Amino acid sequence: MATRSSILDANAYRPDADGPGGPDGTRGGDLLRRRAAALGPAYRLFYREPLELVRGSGAYLYDADGRAYLDAYNNVASVGHAHPRVAAAVARQAATLSTHTRYVDAGLVAYAERLLGLLPPAVDQVMLTCTGSEANDLALRVAAAATGGTGVIVTEEAYHGNTALVTGASPSLGRGAPRGEHVWTVPAPDPLRRPGVDPAAELLAAVHRALDAMAVAGVQPSAFLVDSILSSDGVHSHPVGYLAPAVEAVRAAGGLLVADEVQPGFARTGSAFWGFERHGLDPEIVTMGKPMGNGLPIAGMAARAAVLEPFASTVPYFNTFGGNHVSVAAAAAVLDVIEEEGLQENAARVGAALRAGVREVAARHPVVADVRGDGLFVGVELVAAEGSTEPGSARAADVVNSMRDRGVLTSVCGPWGSTLKVRPPLVATEHDAARFVEVLDEVLALSPVDRGTRRLDHQH
Amino acid sequence: MATRSSILDANAYRPDADGPGGPDGTRGGDLLRRRAAALGPAYRLFYREPLELVRGSGAYLYDADGRAYLDAYNNVASVGHAHPRVAAAVARQAATLSTHTRYVDAGLVAYAERLLGLLPPAVDQVMLTCTGSEANDLALRVAAAATGGTGVIVTEEAYHGNTALVTGASPSLGRGAPRGEHVWTVPAPDPLRRPGVDPAAELLAAVHRALDAMAVAGVQPSAFLVDSILSSDGVHSHPVGYLAPAVEAVRAAGGLLVADEVQPGFARTGSAFWGFERHGLDPEIVTMGKPMGNGLPIAGMAARAAVLEPFASTVPYFNTFGGNHVSVAAAAAVLDVIEEEGLQENAARVGAALRAGVREVAARHPVVADVRGDGLFVGVELVAAEGSTEPGSARAADVVNSMRDRGVLTSVCGPWGSTLKVRPPLVATEHDAARFVEVLDEVLALSPVDRGTRRLDHQH
Repeated sequence: MATRSSILDANAYRPDADGPGGPDGTRGGDLLRRRAAALGPAYRLFYREPLELVRGSGAYLYDADGRAYLDAYNNVASVGHAHPRVAAAVARQAATLSTHTRYVDAGLVAYAERLLGLLPPAVDQVMLTCTGSEANDLALRVAAAATGGTGVIVTEEAYHGNTALVTGASPSLGRGAPRGEHVWTVPAPDPLRRPGVDPAAELLAAVHRALDAMAVAGVQPSAFLVDSILSSDGVHSHPVGYLAPAVEAVRAAGGLLVADEVQPGFARTGSAFWGFERHGLDPEIVTMGKPMGNGLPIAGMAARAAVLEPFASTVPYFNTFGGNHVSVAAAAAVLDVIEEEGLQENAARVGAALRAGVREVAARHPVVADVRGDGLFVGVELVAAEGSTEPGSARAADVVNSMRDRGVLTSVCGPWGSTLKVRPPLVATEHDAARFVEVLDEVLALSPVDRGTRRLDHQH
Repeated sequence: MATRSSILDANAYRPDADGPGGPDGTRGGDLLRRRAAALGPAYRLFYREPLELVRGSGAYLYDADGRAYLDAYNNVASVGHAHPRVAAAVARQAATLSTHTRYVDAGLVAYAERLLGLLPPAVDQVMLTCTGSEANDLALRVAAAATGGTGVIVTEEAYHGNTALVTGASPSLGRGAPRGEHVWTVPAPDPLRRPGVDPAAELLAAVHRALDAMAVAGVQPSAFLVDSILSSDGVHSHPVGYLAPAVEAVRAAGGLLVADEVQPGFARTGSAFWGFERHGLDPEIVTMGKPMGNGLPIAGMAARAAVLEPFASTVPYFNTFGGNHVSVAAAAAVLDVIEEEGLQENAARVGAALRAGVREVAARHPVVADVRGDGLFVGVELVAAEGSTEPGSARAADVVNSMRDRGVLTSVCGPWGSTLKVRPPLVATEHDAARFVEVLDEVLALSPVDRGTRRLDHQH
């Protein structure tokens, strides 16, 4: 089967294959060349024709020519691009004070209490960082200090961040980023290719194998670090509750559940505020990031006090920008907006309409082999041909680029880059969902040539 | 000699010894209790009477009662607290767009080029992160990929950040944070306790010992990671150029110079824009952070293209919030302000006045044993008694708290917490410098009882 080299290469612009990138919205190739010269080879761009975006509002992004794009991908500006209430909170705070947490600040305390109020009562303390990577890096050390163990279990295509420690717990990064010495992997469900297999039993067996391997290696378990919607594994939202037996097995062996809510958290799944909540899980540690400040850097790690204590009372930890006033003001405004605009309910309603629409498309285009997700976190799996289970990696790349050309932004995920990752801001409407469905329908009807065959080998 | 357990405990409020913290500006003990309950034991506060700050402007911070404090400590809001130009840039951008770097953005490219224009020509590519910790974590991996080595040299009281990897390269964190397996340390200068010793020769010999130890351990050198003003080692700014022979020895053994500019960078030292520049050094990698966005989270790692290439072309790296539009807008405004307000020149002029004033105080109070620094980065070393070289740790703690009570904010650094770390925003005036000097003079004249003997054992 086709495989991609790394999750970060999925849907990436490649100057050699794709040409200079201009003139569509990117000021020709000059800006791209300057960009590559100044930022170096690590910086990827989306799409065969990269986009230059200059403005955002609600679920829409606009390029330099004023063209609107329905954003069906970005989960950072989760309450809507440039939300006026968040922008006003940021503006007010930046003009007032932004400093660190070594002075007493009523706003910080109030935000921490409010955030904890949204978590299970046992998860009663929170530390603020700037990025989800920092939160997961911290969480793994907190778990190690609490358990005395070092063994970590993650899913086979997990992504948990970019620090040295969590890069080793992010197998989706591919061969360039070797797995950490004490990291074991377990598979995500694959209802399409392993029909009839019970995901709960399959995962439980894999976790037992990982724990056995740890025992053989003399490694004590520390944590099951998991994004409960398995976004980089291809968005696996169901069956609800299937993670629980595996979590219990990890606990029985002395490890903890670290719920990585960077992707599913903050009301995105509609059915719950947190991804773990959907599955009825009770994590010892919860990490969060991306949507927390709607575009301002803020992230965090919450934990049960007794779990946090062994680390926090012995290892000095301070994060200069973690909990700065401007980021906290943004984060508090995000909670206001989610609550007052009813965005969790909106995510549930619009997400259901979106999936229903995509399922109708699937009935007309059988290369759409599976539609997964909850709320506004949706995975649409494409196969190479009707009735086949071979991943439709090239087709997915073509679909994403053809949709972009028609003003709808999405991208791909999963082990083969064959799953459309559909994740619009939580303010998306049923009209937006209908537009996504209409454009998807349209591009799936195109011949391979019209969809852009020049990159049929793109994902290999 | 007295030692502190960790740099992060220096000048920390301790509820047990210091009482409930109220009512001075902190709304009594209630807010402190709620804070400790929600944020857990890792969160420290400055001062025996913690401060609740609600507003900042220029070099001044204000508490809830409207009392002004001269900020002689914080280097994040480096162009002045709530600088109107930075605040306006942040407000404008937050109301327009904040997304990631996978779309083309002319503002990001322009900022990257402008930043690189301030660095030596050979350092020609930059990657943006959110925190200095992330920048140093990345830099160590870039250096390892470029050299094939893993051995890192840092100073004995270095602090380079809070991720798992750089915590191991931050011996100032003390016993709670074990040193990384491949990390070796070299001493900072100590002109007071080792008079007549040439700092350049001393450092070179120590680096040779470290390299020899690496060879014995079968470890290949990777990097000398150094903050050229040695801020957590106690602010060692002189003699100018003394680091060069050690850097050459590291290079001869195959290692690189990683200049950690999180503290001395962005014009603070007055005599140069970067700390390494003062010493005539030519780093392969430069990391930066704190003052870069004047309170918005933004940091970065710049490197020579050939040094960056082995990492950046093989290890997928993406930082969701790194280079977001709002942080970049803040960072660009910071460069505007430094340039247009002549802040490097101001730092040189006001810093010289500040040191001259403190030296006059030292003449009256011989417990001030040394005054070091450049520009607005000043270290004032206190000893236990006139003529003694015993660190004045308890005295420094008392002085810092007495100055706080008189409306001047500073803190301590160095291996014994006996050095006042004086680092006002770059917009501080000669009037502000005179005020600092006057208050320092005043509190040094107090008897130990008046200065607050109840914490004479604070640093032990």
